[in-house]
Amino acid sequence: MLKKEMKIVALLTDFGTRDPYLAQMKGVILRANPSVQLVDISHEIPPHNILIGMFFLKAVEPYFPGGTYFLAVVDPGVGTKRKALFVKKKGKFFLAPDNGILTPFLEKPFAAFSLPVPSNASSTFHGRDVFALHLGRLLVGERIEDIGKPVKEPVRIELPAPHIRKGKIKGEVLFDDRFGNLITNIPSKALSAGVKSVRFMGRELPFLSTYASVRRGRPLAVIGSFGNLEIAVREGSAKNFFGASPGAPVEVYLSE
Amino acid sequence: MLKKEMKIVALLTDFGTRDPYLAQMKGVILRANPSVQLVDISHEIPPHNILIGMFFLKAVEPYFPGGTYFLAVVDPGVGTKRKALFVKKKGKFFLAPDNGILTPFLEKPFAAFSLPVPSNASSTFHGRDVFALHLGRLLVGERIEDIGKPVKEPVRIELPAPHIRKGKIKGEVLFDDRFGNLITNIPSKALSAGVKSVRFMGRELPFLSTYASVRRGRPLAVIGSFGNLEIAVREGSAKNFFGASPGAPVEVYLSE
Amino acid sequence: MLKKEMKIVALLTDFGTRDPYLAQMKGVILRANPSVQLVDISHEIPPHNILIGMFFLKAVEPYFPGGTYFLAVVDPGVGTKRKALFVKKKGKFFLAPDNGILTPFLEKPFAAFSLPVPSNASSTFHGRDVFALHLGRLLVGERIEDIGKPVKEPVRIELPAPHIRKGKIKGEVLFDDRFGNLITNIPSKALSAGVKSVRFMGRELPFLSTYASVRRGRPLAVIGSFGNLEIAVREGSAKNFFGASPGAPVEVYLSE
Repeated sequence: MLKKEMKIVALLTDFGTRDPYLAQMKGVILRANPSVQLVDISHEIPPHNILIGMFFLKAVEPYFPGGTYFLAVVDPGVGTKRKALFVKKKGKFFLAPDNGILTPFLEKPFAAFSLPVPSNASSTFHGRDVFALHLGRLLVGERIEDIGKPVKEPVRIELPAPHIRKGKIKGEVLFDDRFGNLITNIPSKALSAGVKSVRFMGRELPFLSTYASVRRGRPLAVIGSFGNLEIAVREGSAKNFFGASPGAPVEVYLSE
Repeated sequence: MLKKEMKIVALLTDFGTRDPYLAQMKGVILRANPSVQLVDISHEIPPHNILIGMFFLKAVEPYFPGGTYFLAVVDPGVGTKRKALFVKKKGKFFLAPDNGILTPFLEKPFAAFSLPVPSNASSTFHGRDVFALHLGRLLVGERIEDIGKPVKEPVRIELPAPHIRKGKIKGEVLFDDRFGNLITNIPSKALSAGVKSVRFMGRELPFLSTYASVRRGRPLAVIGSFGNLEIAVREGSAKNFFGASPGAPVEVYLSE
Repeated sequence: MLKKEMKIVALLTDFGTRDPYLAQMKGVILRANPSVQLVDISHEIPPHNILIGMFFLKAVEPYFPGGTYFLAVVDPGVGTKRKALFVKKKGKFFLAPDNGILTPFLEKPFAAFSLPVPSNASSTFHGRDVFALHLGRLLVGERIEDIGKPVKEPVRIELPAPHIRKGKIKGEVLFDDRFGNLITNIPSKALSAGVKSVRFMGRELPFLSTYASVRRGRPLAVIGSFGNLEIAVREGSAKNFFGASPGAPVEVYLSE
C-alpha cells in the first residue's frame, strides 16, 4: 500500500517555534521530499541543554515506528570542530551534533557516520545547512556510505545517576513538566523491592499508583509515564507546592 | 483519487508542546498509520480545564471535514474509574475521557462506546496508552464494535449560561485570547433583537461590526469569530485595558 | 511519482497556538484537500506586527520548494476595505492582507489579484473565512483568474534601513530570537569591505565567524543565519547581557 511508504521525520530542537529557524529546516527537508510526515517532538528544550534533549529523545523513540528519522539539534558547539553525526540503531536513524545527545542509541551494535559541512554552510546554523540538507539526501535514496565517513567513538554523556545503597536510593529531580510534575532520575525498576517511604523537601510522601489516589491539591509520589519516579500534586503543581527545581534531592527507602 | 483518502487526526490536549507527551501519542498513532494527517488544535488548554477544552473543540469541529478523528485529552481523572470514550456523531469521530469534554457532540443521535484500558497502560497517561492506541486500531480498519462496549449516558457538562430576562442579558467572560480579546458566553443569536448598549467593567461600550470601527487603542464590543460577543480593543488588549479575567460579568441591553 | 505531488501550505500568523483560530483555518484548508503538507512557519509574530511578519516570511521563503503556498495572516485591518491579496512570484504563491507583508515578493515581475470577501465572512477573522477559503479553492484546481481581480499596486512597506556613509554603518536591532541573539538590519553584503569594529551599547565587540570563537558568556558580533549582523553571547543571551531591545542602535566601522 503506497500510503505506508510515507517517511517519518521527527524533530527535536532548542529553537522554539517563534523564530524562523525551524521552518527553514523543514523547508530544506520538503525541497527534497515534499511528502514526508514531519512530527515535532519538542522545540522548547532549554537552550543548549543537551541532557534534557537526550532525555526527551530517549523518552519518545520507542513509540515511533521503525524507519523513523530523528533530527535532534541542540548544538552549543555549532561552528566548532564537533562532528555532525548520523547514527543507525535498530532500524531507526538519528542525525545530531556529536555532543552526546544520541547517547541512548550508542549501545552496540550501532553504525555511526560523520556528515560533511558544505563550504557555504552558515557557521551558526548547521541544523538547516548540514543536518536538514543531508537528511534530504537520505530521504531521496542516497546512501549514508556515500555521504559520510564512519565514526568509531561518538561522544557520550550521562544523566546524573541515582545512588543506591543498602535499601536507600538518593536521586534528584531532572525536570518539571507543564503540569508541575517533578520527574526524577529514579527508574521504576530500581523500586522493584518495594517502596517503604519517599522523602522530598522535608516531607514524607505517599507512594501511590495514580494521581487520583489523594485528595485534590495533595502531594504524592508516583511512577509517571516516563517510567521514573515523579513527585506530583493531584490537579495541581508539585513545582509550585514545594518550590522545587531540577536538581532537588529525593530519597526513597526500600522495603527489606 | 488516492490522495483524498488521507485520514485526519485532530488533537487537543492540555499537555503543552515542551514535554514529550504529545510526541509519544503521535508516535503511537503513526505506528498504526504513518500517513495520517495530524493537526494540532491546541495543546495549551489550561491544565485540567475541561470546560475550555470543550469550548475549543466545539469551536473547531464544524470546520473539519467529515471522517475526521478528534482526540481530546484533558484528563484530570486519569487512573480513576472514569470511562475512556469513543463517540461517533454526524460522520465525525471523537476519543476522549468521559468527563464532559465531548458534551457538544452528545445530542441525539450519537453512538458512544467505552474503550478498554490495557493491563500494561500507565496509570498517569491514558492519552498515549489508551486513546492513541485505540485510535491506531480504528485507523487501520478495526471496528469500534469489536473494541469497545456501548455507553448509554456519557457525562455531560455545561458552560456557564447567560441569563436573559426582559431585554437584558447578563453574561460573563469565558476566556481571553492571544490578542487580549475577551470572549463571552453570549451567542450572537441572543442579540437578534438588536443591541441598545453593552456594559463592561463600569463602562458603556459601542457595539460595532469590526475592530477597525474605533480608533486604535479604544474598546468596543463585537461579534467575534466564535459567533459570541467579544470585548476588544483595536490593535490592543482588552484584557490589559480593563484588567479583566475570565468570569468578569458583561451586561447587554437589548432594543425593544 | 505520486508522492511528489503533495502540495505544501506554509502558514505564518500572529494568532499564537493556544486559541482555536489556527486550527479553524487548517480545517478549512483540509476540507478542500485533506492531503496537503501543512507547515507552520511561526504563529508567534508579535500581534499586529506586519514588519516582523514580513521579515520572517522573507527569511523562510527561499528554503521552500517551488509551488509552495504561503498563507500569511497578520491583519490589523481586518474588516476594513484593505484588500485580500493573492500574489504569484517565481513559481510560489502568497495569500495575505494587502498591508505590505508581501513586500519582498513584489519586485517585478509578479502577478497580484484581490480575493473577494464572501457575504457570510466574519468581520474579525478573514484568515479563516477569506484566505483559507480561497486557498482551498486554488488547492483543488480553480484558477485565480476566475476567483479574483488583478491588482496593480499592492501596498509596500520597508524595514528600517541601515545608514551607510564613509565607512560607517548605523543600523539597529530588528528583533531578539529565542536564544537572546539580537538580529540587526545590517546585511552581510554591506560588510564586504571588511569590518574594523562593531560598537553596541557602549562596547566594542569582536567580529567573528562563530559563537564558539569567544569564551562562554562573552559577547560578539557575527553574521547569523539570516545573513544579517547579529549581536550574540556564547551559550548565553545577548538580550539579557546588554538589556537591549528591538530598536537599539548598532554601529559598524568598515576597513578602508
